[in-house]
Amino acid sequence: MELHVGFLPEEAGDCRGRAAAVIDVIRATTSLLTMVERGCDEIVIAPTVDAARRYRAAHAGMLLAGERGGRAPEGFDFGNSPAEFARADLAGRRVVFATTNGTRALHIARDAPVVLIASLRNRTAAARVLVEEATRRGLDLTVICSGRERRFGLDDAYTAGAIVEAILAGPAGRGVAPTDAALAARVLFRAHPDPEALFRTTWAGRNVVEIGLEEDLRVCAEQDCSATVPRLGERVRLLEE
Amino acid sequence: MELHVGFLPEEAGDCRGRAAAVIDVIRATTSLLTMVERGCDEIVIAPTVDAARRYRAAHAGMLLAGERGGRAPEGFDFGNSPAEFARADLAGRRVVFATTNGTRALHIARDAPVVLIASLRNRTAAARVLVEEATRRGLDLTVICSGRERRFGLDDAYTAGAIVEAILAGPAGRGVAPTDAALAARVLFRAHPDPEALFRTTWAGRNVVEIGLEEDLRVCAEQDCSATVPRLGERVRLLEE
Repeated sequence: MELHVGFLPEEAGDCRGRAAAVIDVIRATTSLLTMVERGCDEIVIAPTVDAARRYRAAHAGMLLAGERGGRAPEGFDFGNSPAEFARADLAGRRVVFATTNGTRALHIARDAPVVLIASLRNRTAAARVLVEEATRRGLDLTVICSGRERRFGLDDAYTAGAIVEAILAGPAGRGVAPTDAALAARVLFRAHPDPEALFRTTWAGRNVVEIGLEEDLRVCAEQDCSATVPRLGERVRLLEE
Repeated sequence: MELHVGFLPEEAGDCRGRAAAVIDVIRATTSLLTMVERGCDEIVIAPTVDAARRYRAAHAGMLLAGERGGRAPEGFDFGNSPAEFARADLAGRRVVFATTNGTRALHIARDAPVVLIASLRNRTAAARVLVEEATRRGLDLTVICSGRERRFGLDDAYTAGAIVEAILAGPAGRGVAPTDAALAARVLFRAHPDPEALFRTTWAGRNVVEIGLEEDLRVCAEQDCSATVPRLGERVRLLEE
């Protein structure tokens, strides 16, 4: 069973025959995890703020979430803040959520028979489910980082390494062959014992701090505090336009 | 002055306004360095074995170098072996050299006003020339990894990190702003004190060992033993077809 990491979505390669986990740890996949934990009935993922607005206009009763410059655009119910979602009552609600980088990664992953939504908060649970699904279905494994504006993001790569570590140290680890990218991701994970300190040095993390949302950085950097593993196609789906 | 690393050529982004260093450490850029050191008059870089054959057929007196499955294809004078080039008398000779991954990286880099050919053997010299050229011309810096068959290569990423380390620790280091990818490359470099041991674990390194060319691995893993920094456009050029 091969374990690969795409540091950008385009590096993931062909996802048919693979179980995939998608990461946009600061902040989209951490937000998605929180929305699911808060009881959302459905989350529709839109590639742009305008696409999300159009979808909501055509679907009464939906909530509108997303960001422009890190904050909720005008008329939106929520930004892209896991800390804010954690305080919101979302039970039974439907949300359309605009996320550019995360959408690109999920579109690349969608050919995979299994697509999990991963972050540092659920990394061990995501690793376990990924291996279980791959074993049961005879698939290889791919962890896909969203990156930032088509550039490598150290926060996503670190989180991919956290998942690689959990897979290789787990019960099925001996049967897994990591690619160069998976080995590199693990090195990045092992080199940084304090994810919050690391995240503060990254491009994405600095942006979140600059707009005054340090609370989000802390939420995104918490490790292994959730056993929930959202899946594409189960309550979470991509907007088809 | 921004310092970026493209872990694959496509990640380098737009190279106009940037000084670039291209790496395919196992083995193409190590071979190129050796050919230049051995006194080659001209090296024409071809994207495929067949393109190199056609070029040589039309240009009498040229030597033909390249690889298929790691070895010299039939009728070729040389493979892609730095150890072999180091023993060859190439003074005043012209070579057409087929390298698939390296050609892709050089094509991406060619919009840069300065394109250096880098490897572990000349990493500190390459770092110095890159910064000097960028300072003089007011450019940002990009180190471009070739990767393997469009996948991340840990050997190239490590070598990129070795160059990042030399730049940031050098006299102009304080004025350089590393991107997430540059920081990650430096972590990969710092985590592995023994490059030869690391290279043996990589996909490219395992392939070289499997075909019995361990000697090449040792040559590729030697650090800072050359002050020669070949440039695209000076004795080294891309084949135009």
